[in-house]
Amino acid sequence: MADDPMQEDTHKPWSGRFGEPLDRLAQRFNASVTFDQRLAEHDIEGSLAHARMLGRCGIIPAKDVADIERGMAEILAEVRAGRFAWSIEREDVHLNIESRLTELVGDAGKRLHTARSRNDQVATDMRLWLRAEIDGLLGVLKALRTRILDIAEQHAATLMPGYTHLQVAQPVTFGHHLMAYYEMFSRDTERLVDCRRRVNRLPLGASALAGTSYPIDRESVAKELGFEGVCENSLDAVADRDFAVEFLAAASLSMTHVSRIAEELILWMNPRFGFVKLADRFCTGSSIMPQKKNPDMAELMRGKTGRVYGSLVAMLTVTKGQPLTYNKDNQEDKEPLFDAVDTLRDVLSLLTEMLGGLTVNAERMRAALSEGYATATDLADYLVRKGLPFRDAHEVVAKAVKTAEAAGKDLAELSLPELKAFSPLVGDDVLKFLTPEGSVASRSHIGGTAPTAVRAAIARARSRL
Amino acid sequence: MADDPMQEDTHKPWSGRFGEPLDRLAQRFNASVTFDQRLAEHDIEGSLAHARMLGRCGIIPAKDVADIERGMAEILAEVRAGRFAWSIEREDVHLNIESRLTELVGDAGKRLHTARSRNDQVATDMRLWLRAEIDGLLGVLKALRTRILDIAEQHAATLMPGYTHLQVAQPVTFGHHLMAYYEMFSRDTERLVDCRRRVNRLPLGASALAGTSYPIDRESVAKELGFEGVCENSLDAVADRDFAVEFLAAASLSMTHVSRIAEELILWMNPRFGFVKLADRFCTGSSIMPQKKNPDMAELMRGKTGRVYGSLVAMLTVTKGQPLTYNKDNQEDKEPLFDAVDTLRDVLSLLTEMLGGLTVNAERMRAALSEGYATATDLADYLVRKGLPFRDAHEVVAKAVKTAEAAGKDLAELSLPELKAFSPLVGDDVLKFLTPEGSVASRSHIGGTAPTAVRAAIARARSRL
Amino acid sequence: MADDPMQEDTHKPWSGRFGEPLDRLAQRFNASVTFDQRLAEHDIEGSLAHARMLGRCGIIPAKDVADIERGMAEILAEVRAGRFAWSIEREDVHLNIESRLTELVGDAGKRLHTARSRNDQVATDMRLWLRAEIDGLLGVLKALRTRILDIAEQHAATLMPGYTHLQVAQPVTFGHHLMAYYEMFSRDTERLVDCRRRVNRLPLGASALAGTSYPIDRESVAKELGFEGVCENSLDAVADRDFAVEFLAAASLSMTHVSRIAEELILWMNPRFGFVKLADRFCTGSSIMPQKKNPDMAELMRGKTGRVYGSLVAMLTVTKGQPLTYNKDNQEDKEPLFDAVDTLRDVLSLLTEMLGGLTVNAERMRAALSEGYATATDLADYLVRKGLPFRDAHEVVAKAVKTAEAAGKDLAELSLPELKAFSPLVGDDVLKFLTPEGSVASRSHIGGTAPTAVRAAIARARSRL
Amino acid sequence: MADDPMQEDTHKPWSGRFGEPLDRLAQRFNASVTFDQRLAEHDIEGSLAHARMLGRCGIIPAKDVADIERGMAEILAEVRAGRFAWSIEREDVHLNIESRLTELVGDAGKRLHTARSRNDQVATDMRLWLRAEIDGLLGVLKALRTRILDIAEQHAATLMPGYTHLQVAQPVTFGHHLMAYYEMFSRDTERLVDCRRRVNRLPLGASALAGTSYPIDRESVAKELGFEGVCENSLDAVADRDFAVEFLAAASLSMTHVSRIAEELILWMNPRFGFVKLADRFCTGSSIMPQKKNPDMAELMRGKTGRVYGSLVAMLTVTKGQPLTYNKDNQEDKEPLFDAVDTLRDVLSLLTEMLGGLTVNAERMRAALSEGYATATDLADYLVRKGLPFRDAHEVVAKAVKTAEAAGKDLAELSLPELKAFSPLVGDDVLKFLTPEGSVASRSHIGGTAPTAVRAAIARARSRL
Repeated sequence: MADDPMQEDTHKPWSGRFGEPLDRLAQRFNASVTFDQRLAEHDIEGSLAHARMLGRCGIIPAKDVADIERGMAEILAEVRAGRFAWSIEREDVHLNIESRLTELVGDAGKRLHTARSRNDQVATDMRLWLRAEIDGLLGVLKALRTRILDIAEQHAATLMPGYTHLQVAQPVTFGHHLMAYYEMFSRDTERLVDCRRRVNRLPLGASALAGTSYPIDRESVAKELGFEGVCENSLDAVADRDFAVEFLAAASLSMTHVSRIAEELILWMNPRFGFVKLADRFCTGSSIMPQKKNPDMAELMRGKTGRVYGSLVAMLTVTKGQPLTYNKDNQEDKEPLFDAVDTLRDVLSLLTEMLGGLTVNAERMRAALSEGYATATDLADYLVRKGLPFRDAHEVVAKAVKTAEAAGKDLAELSLPELKAFSPLVGDDVLKFLTPEGSVASRSHIGGTAPTAVRAAIARARSRL
Repeated sequence: MADDPMQEDTHKPWSGRFGEPLDRLAQRFNASVTFDQRLAEHDIEGSLAHARMLGRCGIIPAKDVADIERGMAEILAEVRAGRFAWSIEREDVHLNIESRLTELVGDAGKRLHTARSRNDQVATDMRLWLRAEIDGLLGVLKALRTRILDIAEQHAATLMPGYTHLQVAQPVTFGHHLMAYYEMFSRDTERLVDCRRRVNRLPLGASALAGTSYPIDRESVAKELGFEGVCENSLDAVADRDFAVEFLAAASLSMTHVSRIAEELILWMNPRFGFVKLADRFCTGSSIMPQKKNPDMAELMRGKTGRVYGSLVAMLTVTKGQPLTYNKDNQEDKEPLFDAVDTLRDVLSLLTEMLGGLTVNAERMRAALSEGYATATDLADYLVRKGLPFRDAHEVVAKAVKTAEAAGKDLAELSLPELKAFSPLVGDDVLKFLTPEGSVASRSHIGGTAPTAVRAAIARARSRL
Repeated sequence: MADDPMQEDTHKPWSGRFGEPLDRLAQRFNASVTFDQRLAEHDIEGSLAHARMLGRCGIIPAKDVADIERGMAEILAEVRAGRFAWSIEREDVHLNIESRLTELVGDAGKRLHTARSRNDQVATDMRLWLRAEIDGLLGVLKALRTRILDIAEQHAATLMPGYTHLQVAQPVTFGHHLMAYYEMFSRDTERLVDCRRRVNRLPLGASALAGTSYPIDRESVAKELGFEGVCENSLDAVADRDFAVEFLAAASLSMTHVSRIAEELILWMNPRFGFVKLADRFCTGSSIMPQKKNPDMAELMRGKTGRVYGSLVAMLTVTKGQPLTYNKDNQEDKEPLFDAVDTLRDVLSLLTEMLGGLTVNAERMRAALSEGYATATDLADYLVRKGLPFRDAHEVVAKAVKTAEAAGKDLAELSLPELKAFSPLVGDDVLKFLTPEGSVASRSHIGGTAPTAVRAAIARARSRL
Repeated sequence: MADDPMQEDTHKPWSGRFGEPLDRLAQRFNASVTFDQRLAEHDIEGSLAHARMLGRCGIIPAKDVADIERGMAEILAEVRAGRFAWSIEREDVHLNIESRLTELVGDAGKRLHTARSRNDQVATDMRLWLRAEIDGLLGVLKALRTRILDIAEQHAATLMPGYTHLQVAQPVTFGHHLMAYYEMFSRDTERLVDCRRRVNRLPLGASALAGTSYPIDRESVAKELGFEGVCENSLDAVADRDFAVEFLAAASLSMTHVSRIAEELILWMNPRFGFVKLADRFCTGSSIMPQKKNPDMAELMRGKTGRVYGSLVAMLTVTKGQPLTYNKDNQEDKEPLFDAVDTLRDVLSLLTEMLGGLTVNAERMRAALSEGYATATDLADYLVRKGLPFRDAHEVVAKAVKTAEAAGKDLAELSLPELKAFSPLVGDDVLKFLTPEGSVASRSHIGGTAPTAVRAAIARARSRL
């Protein structure tokens, strides 16, 4: 920061008509450079495209463009090296960089802001940044989905209880179970792709709100920056942040999915379940209880769901009821968005790693399958195939379960005569339908839990990745 | 309801193994028929497609299919006529209809539930219903956007102050201002179209959670019901509600946009502004203050934003941390979704109507334009074109404004000599750049506020609608 | 409704200056009588107190007061009998009742609204209603807490694993575990009591917003209606709804607590745990899987947490950024509040009933205790008492656990020589510290899990109830 | 950090039984020291009280207590001087300080954690910290309320339009308007006081979850630390965070109130209103529009409401559905709470300062009063006093307004004969009731807008502060 901050303080690029310097608390409250410096590289990228267009259109001389390019190269190097001297007196990333540019290259720096306002500049920076982050997230999601496919393939035939209401429902395979998450994370991917299209529009040229009187060429800037088009209304371009809210909603949904698999990992690590072990490197212990090995990472992931929901609510609240066009409320768009991006990326990455350290205890899963009459539906289906209407078959089996429960036995543990006592339709072939293997194998249609169906689903998924 | 409810009460299609009837309060708490009866037509539609497939695949006889079709036609007529006797003892829309079907056609009714569970059935109903509602909303949004285009066209050249921070920034046209909302509601439309693709997948065939052992043909059901494909994992099909959350997020964003135009209408109706009048038929008065004419509808729209945000938060909360697969928590998905759909449709419809009853007071808008040195930026741009770097021009004009303000004048009210005193670069041609008409006309690039640009934007929009 | 609704439609108590009747959709959108009729009894109660004060202060004649009392008695009877003819043309509960009053008693009815507005009237109704509901909820919470005390007393010494991170931590008693919920619901009670104080202030007299020019006596109205004081600023009285938001926050917290016990009941009902059984009358089955018995009520309670959170967010959103004083947005305060009150009351009542139908399986709880080295901390504490610093003792025991785990044994299953091998400080008395009974009994300070401490906590609680 | 981080990395106070070091990403994800170091002083305060109690109870020797006190004094100095070497390998504030203590004083440091866990330790730290912050906020709120009283007193008789629905309703005084905010911030104060009681309970002694086997004395620790009592159930003490959620709800409500006054300041600064000017030191300008002076601080305050709402939703989400007792999800409690406290304090402080720089334009307020028939209700009341039922008087005046509006006049601008034409009850004295001064003066009851009533309210407020 400057040797004489008060001197600098009293002069800002907007303060020509002001009679007193900004209040100290107000200055801190107002400044965004502590967090928006994160946009620096995209700010420079946008400024360079803007400057080149100004040059091409004859709005500033070619010499100025060259000076700006030279200065920006130096600034980029300073930023990357951590040498850039950020100053809260210069409020935000934009004025910090512009002031430094003018220090470096003189009048050309003062011409950079021609035909531009911070309003369209920050909207451009945000979109460039978010687009890059979405691309990064798409990569992270692809790695996660690949990891899931690999584990699902190993366990395409590993039996486990399928739960509804956390009660044993029917046998499924662990591979099938994991593929449910594959589907969820695939839809999350789709949503980010859809969101990216709406992010990827150029606000620059909207200037403060009304466009500019200079003969600019917005399409060429859009092309240079890789945007799919320009924002077609200048007021909307500086006023709306719906692209950010849409991202936060997509991120919230993805965190919802993370929270569900995290909940399951925590349950499965409980010794009553004992379905899986997470590698030691993803667990921590207790400062007091020497025996503890806790699935902290899964719990934190579940907890961080709240954080992303909170960011979504924050942004929705900020935007609600604002009159057009830009209002300072919107400065509050950055921190929730930054935090949600970082959280989602870390969580998805860590989940991918953690699944790589998963040990499955197939015996425990299989044992759990024997605790809830998991093949009762198969018995009902058997009776239906023998001619009983489904509703009547349901009744017969419900009574069989009641009897078996009273006797402390599973259905498959009942003798053939015991089973035949429930219905004259029960034949000698009934027992093979009451094994989990038989139950699972019979569900071989698309989307079913049969190992053949699961392997087919994995193959389809691999071909689409 | 039945004469002897307790008798009916003690028997439910799932209660074969239960030792006592459902507690009375629990029954009321558990029953969803009071609200999910709204799904009745889609429930019947889905059941018919399911039954026909069962017939085609030889799982039930053709005679049963015919009976079911006959019974369902009768039930559909009863529902539409309001004659259907809904019963909370029969819990939900599904069991109410199935029970009635069995009353009407006997054993065929008991066979309908073959290879199906309420889990995949309700997911199918919800998707059919939401798809239809989205289609309705797309129509409503189209009507609103068309209305906006019509008014914007009339006011493509009507001058008004463009505000940032609710301070006069630059002159814009009212048509341009309205077109900002056109853009917002167009993106809302895009989001609903994207969401519809994810809604439009068939869960049926997932059965309770694992698929079914019957030789079903899911693709043919999907085709008959107009789905774009099947849910490819049975657990995911019954467990996830992300399509509903995605819709609620899209609806929340659209309400955000509504809240902004509502806020503006309320401001503009304030006598200090007086920019517009809303027709009497969209206003109400006061029970105590005889003079009042209040923009109640706009206020209610703004208020109802909270309701839709609340529904989004409700659903996100419901879903967070649930282990697979279906849990009863998900019964809570319907009311927020129903309410959000109804609210959004009513609000968008009423907004369309209300804009049709808008009277614009161009004189007041023009008067407001003279209150904030709206063309100061044009003066700066003028100086830049004369060779001054933008940052220096900004300084010069800021001082001019300070002087004019002290003298109680607008910039255009200063004399030529007064203006020239600020900079030697000021020439005799300066005044024409200081009129709002000149300012606006000069912003003629794509997205700018020049009447030509606004008309071009309207033409592009019409060609895409 | 009237024979000629259009005629009625064109005339409202506020429409004298309007040129056209309210749009049909707008009328439906604007009307609140479909939900605010719930306030009817409190509306009448408030009107009677207002009328009597007007009489006492000489603002209306005694005869009018008598007429109003007579008319209101008739209306109250109609409302209670379900005979009152609610009309959406009359907008809300207030105008419906006032119009009916005027039908019944003529001019006295037209005088009732003297010195009053719907703005202060509805605020009064809401507060009267919410106060009564809070009182009801306090009763429901007391019943729940009493139920918890009764079960906790039975199980003051029943051993179960205490979990942190859902991993076995230390032995606790089931009574102690339940008493944690007693504490939570006691704080919920405190919060409602605190909230009630802020609810219990009289807005009447604020009139539309500025007070009234009549010589009213607000304190006497407050006294008659049981309010603790009057709202001391008329603008605030009609503009703020923070009492409602505060209630929703308190309700949300209480639902959080419900969601936690519901989560636990669901886990404990899972066959892997098998810690408890819920009576059949609080469970439901499956339409397809004949063996299922699902803890639907607990799941619904957990799900309904989302609903109450959503209502809180809705109200916070509604209120944010509103300029003073009353805006129509606030009509949106009622439905979320009504829904939250109903949900909380039903959920707490049902939870109380459900806990009454709980069967505890102490053997399963005890078995679960042997799965996670629950007394490792006791061994560390033993070593500390022998002189080892705690951190070193923690290390020693961690290694003992690692060894025992490799051998597939619990700590208490290790032989004395095996234990002594870990540290020379281990003596012959060590084994008694490794039993769950010993572990629990040793934690006898206030707040600890020793049966003696639990019984003392129950006794304290009973004395305070 | 250490020269050989890997060596340090592989050893943690809980890792005795672990087979591999923590994954690098997991370590960063898990560590909280980057934000919880903020609790350092309270952590030390709590540790000292714990150590002294251990000494008093004979659990550790007096020598150890002295060593701990000496070491902690050194650490406190290091923390305050910014010299303390925080390390993410040491995870959190607790282990960082404990490790440093052991470096400084040896075995005594290893004994500090006797009879304690990080679970009860962090709960204690949070409560100590939040209690201090609440006390700070109570001071800030008092300063704000005092500022409001001072300005209200100056403007007890300054006329302005009172708005409902942002339409002119009745004349009020600016002092009365400000006193509405006084009431709101007073209730916010009450809520914080209520919340503080529930914060102010000691969790220490709960240890990990079950209490401890050492003969501790919790009451003495509570007394030393200024707590009003101990948490009476150990599981609840470590598991619940409702005190934090309650604070966030109270903070959200207070931000709601801030958002309302911010909205009004922004409106009043708009040139159409021009009711107030904010001092230049609380405004900023535009990088492109030289004339701009924006109420950025007020906008930011309004925007930051979203941030605090978001934190509330985050915490509610984190807590929902967690089984007892402590789960790592709860580590997510700190950042939202820290952020909300900082935001609320800054916002309330800045609002206090900003109100000190407010210039009121009484002429503009008065002018606005003439735009909406503000005394129509007074005319109706006049007619009632002459004997007309209120509903009939309302009708008469509504028609008068309609006529006046058509003539482009305010009511007070109508001639006596014109007024008399509306009703034979209008007498020669009517005009004095139609002035704003007369209107305001007549509302002199408690809570009314009469200058006398406003001054009385201020006097009452001062006596209670």
